[in-house]
Amino acid sequence: MLTQPWINLKKAIEKGNAKRLVSLIEKISVSERARAFSRLDPETIRAMFLLLPSEYAGDLLEELPDEQAADLVELLPSRDAFEIVDSLSTTDQADILADMEDDKAEAILGEMSSEDAQKAREILQYPEDSAGGLMQTDYISFPEDSTIGEVLDDLQGNASTYSDFQTQYIYLTTLDGSLAGVIRLRDLIFSPRITRVRDLKIKDPLSVPVDMILDDMVQIFEDHKFLGLPVVDGAQKLVGVVRRKNILEAYDDKNTDTYLKASGIVGGEELRSMPLRERSKRRLSWLSINIILNIIAASVIAFFQETLSEVIALAVFLPIISDMSGCSGNQAVAVSIRELTLGLVKPHELGRVLLKELGVGLINGLILGLLLGAAAWLWKGNVLFGLVVGGALAVNTIVAVSLGGLIPLFLQRSGKDPALASGPILTTVTDMCGFLLALGFATMSLSYLN
Amino acid sequence: MLTQPWINLKKAIEKGNAKRLVSLIEKISVSERARAFSRLDPETIRAMFLLLPSEYAGDLLEELPDEQAADLVELLPSRDAFEIVDSLSTTDQADILADMEDDKAEAILGEMSSEDAQKAREILQYPEDSAGGLMQTDYISFPEDSTIGEVLDDLQGNASTYSDFQTQYIYLTTLDGSLAGVIRLRDLIFSPRITRVRDLKIKDPLSVPVDMILDDMVQIFEDHKFLGLPVVDGAQKLVGVVRRKNILEAYDDKNTDTYLKASGIVGGEELRSMPLRERSKRRLSWLSINIILNIIAASVIAFFQETLSEVIALAVFLPIISDMSGCSGNQAVAVSIRELTLGLVKPHELGRVLLKELGVGLINGLILGLLLGAAAWLWKGNVLFGLVVGGALAVNTIVAVSLGGLIPLFLQRSGKDPALASGPILTTVTDMCGFLLALGFATMSLSYLN
Repeated sequence: MLTQPWINLKKAIEKGNAKRLVSLIEKISVSERARAFSRLDPETIRAMFLLLPSEYAGDLLEELPDEQAADLVELLPSRDAFEIVDSLSTTDQADILADMEDDKAEAILGEMSSEDAQKAREILQYPEDSAGGLMQTDYISFPEDSTIGEVLDDLQGNASTYSDFQTQYIYLTTLDGSLAGVIRLRDLIFSPRITRVRDLKIKDPLSVPVDMILDDMVQIFEDHKFLGLPVVDGAQKLVGVVRRKNILEAYDDKNTDTYLKASGIVGGEELRSMPLRERSKRRLSWLSINIILNIIAASVIAFFQETLSEVIALAVFLPIISDMSGCSGNQAVAVSIRELTLGLVKPHELGRVLLKELGVGLINGLILGLLLGAAAWLWKGNVLFGLVVGGALAVNTIVAVSLGGLIPLFLQRSGKDPALASGPILTTVTDMCGFLLALGFATMSLSYLN
Repeated sequence: MLTQPWINLKKAIEKGNAKRLVSLIEKISVSERARAFSRLDPETIRAMFLLLPSEYAGDLLEELPDEQAADLVELLPSRDAFEIVDSLSTTDQADILADMEDDKAEAILGEMSSEDAQKAREILQYPEDSAGGLMQTDYISFPEDSTIGEVLDDLQGNASTYSDFQTQYIYLTTLDGSLAGVIRLRDLIFSPRITRVRDLKIKDPLSVPVDMILDDMVQIFEDHKFLGLPVVDGAQKLVGVVRRKNILEAYDDKNTDTYLKASGIVGGEELRSMPLRERSKRRLSWLSINIILNIIAASVIAFFQETLSEVIALAVFLPIISDMSGCSGNQAVAVSIRELTLGLVKPHELGRVLLKELGVGLINGLILGLLLGAAAWLWKGNVLFGLVVGGALAVNTIVAVSLGGLIPLFLQRSGKDPALASGPILTTVTDMCGFLLALGFATMSLSYLN
């Protein structure tokens, strides 16, 4: 790969050569396209999407991460954006519109036929992580009194339409559109043509209410082996289908979000192709809270300036105590968040988590305290100095580990996102506590330290 | 839920009432069972698995997270463990054996028939995240010159066996067992019985070599819509099938691992039901490296003790500078790891990442430096003191953000796991650099600071 693919793309776009552009894009594998497009400047991307047939442009958008697709569509004039978005399925439309800025999404909805716009708005109204937001609206349904022969004939007659649906199930409905049953497509193979479909249907079909949240759907797909589940509205009418694959992908996205949020990347995934201002702003929103919490925590040191100026060597150990306690506490935070996600612990089980973390805190606090205390003793040749430093780290490790285990449970109980807030709360409290312990111990034993 | 389900379980186990035990387990939903079992003490768990029929015990194990299943099996005498593990599919056997301690896994393999043990060892030899480690060995294959009628008759005759396989494809093989083609099960519906299956087969069927790594398989499933892909050995012989669902789940596990590793939980997921010693040891393995890195970083402060004792107020700001730079750098680490995972950046694109991060570093460094510098100025009433503190944070933010973006790329290039090592390397370097900047600036302007 001597020439990067986007260099050729850019040339074809500049020449306005649509045919060559399509053949170049086809040569880039689907998984490489996101990277190639992220290397083109906004002007070139705009020219590219105006050059491509809308249907083809729509197919390209479907393959990209939602955030990237939304950013690209935002670059286009609303009429052209509409033509591309119009070629997508309602679910894909909603995914992209949801990630766009409100006024630009509204402009596209305004270009749509009132019927299409209403459909898209219906899906948009559901939270992205609910059954309504994740469902597909393409599915195959038949009246429940059809025969297998009738169904097979219809399937064969419309094979080209249905082959896009990727569904493994056929849904049976009553006359008023309510869900009556489900049949596995493959079961049609194993039965004679004259059988009525209702005789094959899975008894008591599971269905998902349109407002069910992602975590509950993950549990249902864990408890049952179905590849897809029908979604019903309040009146039990069939409105869509959620597929195992989409639920697993959404769950994966959510887990990724946990990692990014815990690292201080909030407000959706950051891609380096996003505008600099946007990236700075997102990261600062979290850093600016953090700097204030940091100042509050460090103000403890200001109260002990006298002690510190007498035992200046302690200044070397304050950042170590602060950092190590933060690390120990964050380990406990990660285990709690993971156990909450897996359902292995419930937010009210504070006692159990505290007990389990106290054990680890005692052992690790003792060992780390001994290590750091010994280092301090060796360096200064003063046992008491080692005791002050090691004791502060030991006690603070116990505090940090216990708090780290409990904070995510508290946040979950009060409806806050544990991945986002646990870290800053934890480090602020353990920093304050660590400084207080080290400087407090030092003040108490001041006369013996120098 | 007034009584916790495990209290009743424990009673039934103590009474040795197997029938009541099964009916109690059946009442707990599958997703709740992992939590219920994690609340029983090792003695009770052992008694439970000895009480249950092996097949049923095997079904229970399949539903649990692999780590938990392996821990439970380790509690049993090897003969009983064997009987339960023997009822599992070869893939599930390998998953559990891989997570067990080596001697205990060997004991179970020793109880197996030499043929079964060899099969399990074959899968065990593949890395867990390769096609061989993730493939299913249950699949449906036919000689390529069969007719649809023959295939349908066989499917109907063996419906009960095949219905467990969950495959959506039929694989066609030549006489020597090489992969010849693939047919979608549903396509059988749309064609007459006399057609030969080879006429329906997907042209140029994609197959996966047995040593392909997870990331490459994720890309293939992203590029193509198949639900499963055949796995072939070096001689093109069909040896198994990887399913989209399993690949997505393995990928999700890997992403979760990224989060846990970045938080300092290494060596697989920690569950609080694991023994205390094990949990302490795992966490300490990471913390003990960290404390040494911390001591190295903080030793910079020791070199500047004279400066520090003259400007003791600086001791308040050292932990703030260290913590804030760590936060800024970790944001960049998270974005790089995510972009590497998505394939949006390649490990050699150092220049691009540096440029993109320098932009954010300049803006955020300036803003954060101004904030902290103003706070320091207001507190001490000395502009120069504000400049020293704010300047150090500003410069160190630029360093931290650039390094944070680049370190994961370097680690990936040298075959190391970026999630594991990026954090400790980053914070050690930025701590040292931050202390050096703040204390160095202070030393240079010492005569004006007091």
